[in-house]
Amino acid sequence: MIGPEIDKLIQLLAKLPGLGPRSARRVTLYLLDHRDTVMEPLATALSEAADAIRACSICGNLDTSDPCAICADAGRDAATVCVVEQVSDLWALERTKAFRGRYHVLGGTLSALDGIGPEDLDIPSLIERARASEVEEVILALNATVDGQTTAHYITDRLASCGVTVTRLAHGVPVGGELDYLDDGTLMAALKSRRAL
Amino acid sequence: MIGPEIDKLIQLLAKLPGLGPRSARRVTLYLLDHRDTVMEPLATALSEAADAIRACSICGNLDTSDPCAICADAGRDAATVCVVEQVSDLWALERTKAFRGRYHVLGGTLSALDGIGPEDLDIPSLIERARASEVEEVILALNATVDGQTTAHYITDRLASCGVTVTRLAHGVPVGGELDYLDDGTLMAALKSRRAL
Repeated sequence: MIGPEIDKLIQLLAKLPGLGPRSARRVTLYLLDHRDTVMEPLATALSEAADAIRACSICGNLDTSDPCAICADAGRDAATVCVVEQVSDLWALERTKAFRGRYHVLGGTLSALDGIGPEDLDIPSLIERARASEVEEVILALNATVDGQTTAHYITDRLASCGVTVTRLAHGVPVGGELDYLDDGTLMAALKSRRAL
Repeated sequence: MIGPEIDKLIQLLAKLPGLGPRSARRVTLYLLDHRDTVMEPLATALSEAADAIRACSICGNLDTSDPCAICADAGRDAATVCVVEQVSDLWALERTKAFRGRYHVLGGTLSALDGIGPEDLDIPSLIERARASEVEEVILALNATVDGQTTAHYITDRLASCGVTVTRLAHGVPVGGELDYLDDGTLMAALKSRRAL
C-alpha cells in the first residue's frame, strides 16, 4: 500500500532513460531522505529549466536565450559551422574546449527504417546558413554509424553548390585505446590515414 | 558552454543513486524533449511529495498522513508487527499482498563498523509497541546479512520479557531458483527446514 503521491513520483521517475521501476523506487527513497539538499532544489531546477530553456532558432542548441550563448558570442568564429546530430554531441565537443566555431544541431539522422527524411531534420536551415557569405567550412561531426554516414553523404551533396569546404572528423585509434580490441574497420581507416612523425 | 540552468539540473540529477554525470546529461536531454509529459509533472510531483510526505510516528512508514494509511487501517491485524530495515522492504512486502498486519521500520541495522547502536534505530519504540497488550507476534523480516542477523538477535533478546512470539522469515530455495547456482548456506538451510509433501 504505497500512497498515491509516492506512487506518482515513482511512475514518473521510471519513465526516465536508464531507470526502471526498481531504481525509481530507490531514487524516490533517496529523495525523501534528502529533501532539503536534493529533492526541493531538483523540483525548483526542473520547473525553472522547463520554463526558461528553448531551442536556439539559429543552431538548435538548448539555452535560456535565443540566439543561444554560442551563436551570440562574437568571439566564436562564424566562418566554421560544426554539424552534430544531437545537443548531447554539441556538449561533448564543448567539453573538449578545442572548437571555437559555431554549431548546427540536426535533431537526428536520416533513416529509411524510421521514416525520417531531410524535411524532418534541420537540414534546410543548414543549407541556408551555408549559403551566407560568412560561412567558409562545414564540419560534419556525425556519428560513425550507417545512418550518420548516410546523412553526411546527403548533406555533402546538398552543400556542393554552396561554395563551402565540407570536412568530417578523422577516423582512427581512440587515444588510450588498444589495437587488439579495435574493430577491423577502424584499424584499416587508421592505417590509411597514417601520419609522418 | 552549457548554460547554468541546465548545468545545475545535471549536477542535481547526477547525485541520485545509480546516475552519474553521463546518465544525468542523458536524462536532462530526455526531460527537455518531454517537457509537458514528464518534466513539468515530475517537478510538481517532487515538490508536492517533499511538502506532504512524512514518516509515520508509530511505524516509520512514509505517507502523507500520520499515522500512516497502514497504521490507521482498522482492517489490518494489530496483533502482528513485521519489523523491516527500510521503507523499501515494507514496499516489497506490500507488493506480495500476503501480509495483513502492521509494520515497524527500524531505519537500518546495528553496525559496529559504522558505529550504529540501538539508540540510532527505532528499537526503543518497537519494544514499547511490543509491550502493549494487543501485540502477539513480532516477525523479524530483516535482511539475511551479518548486520541484519546481528540486529535480529539483539531484538529477540530485548523482546524476551515482552510476552510476544518472535518469528523470522524462512530461509530456503528462492521460487524459480536453480540449486546449482545457490550458495551452500542457503542449500543447507533449505535441507534442514525440509517439509513433508
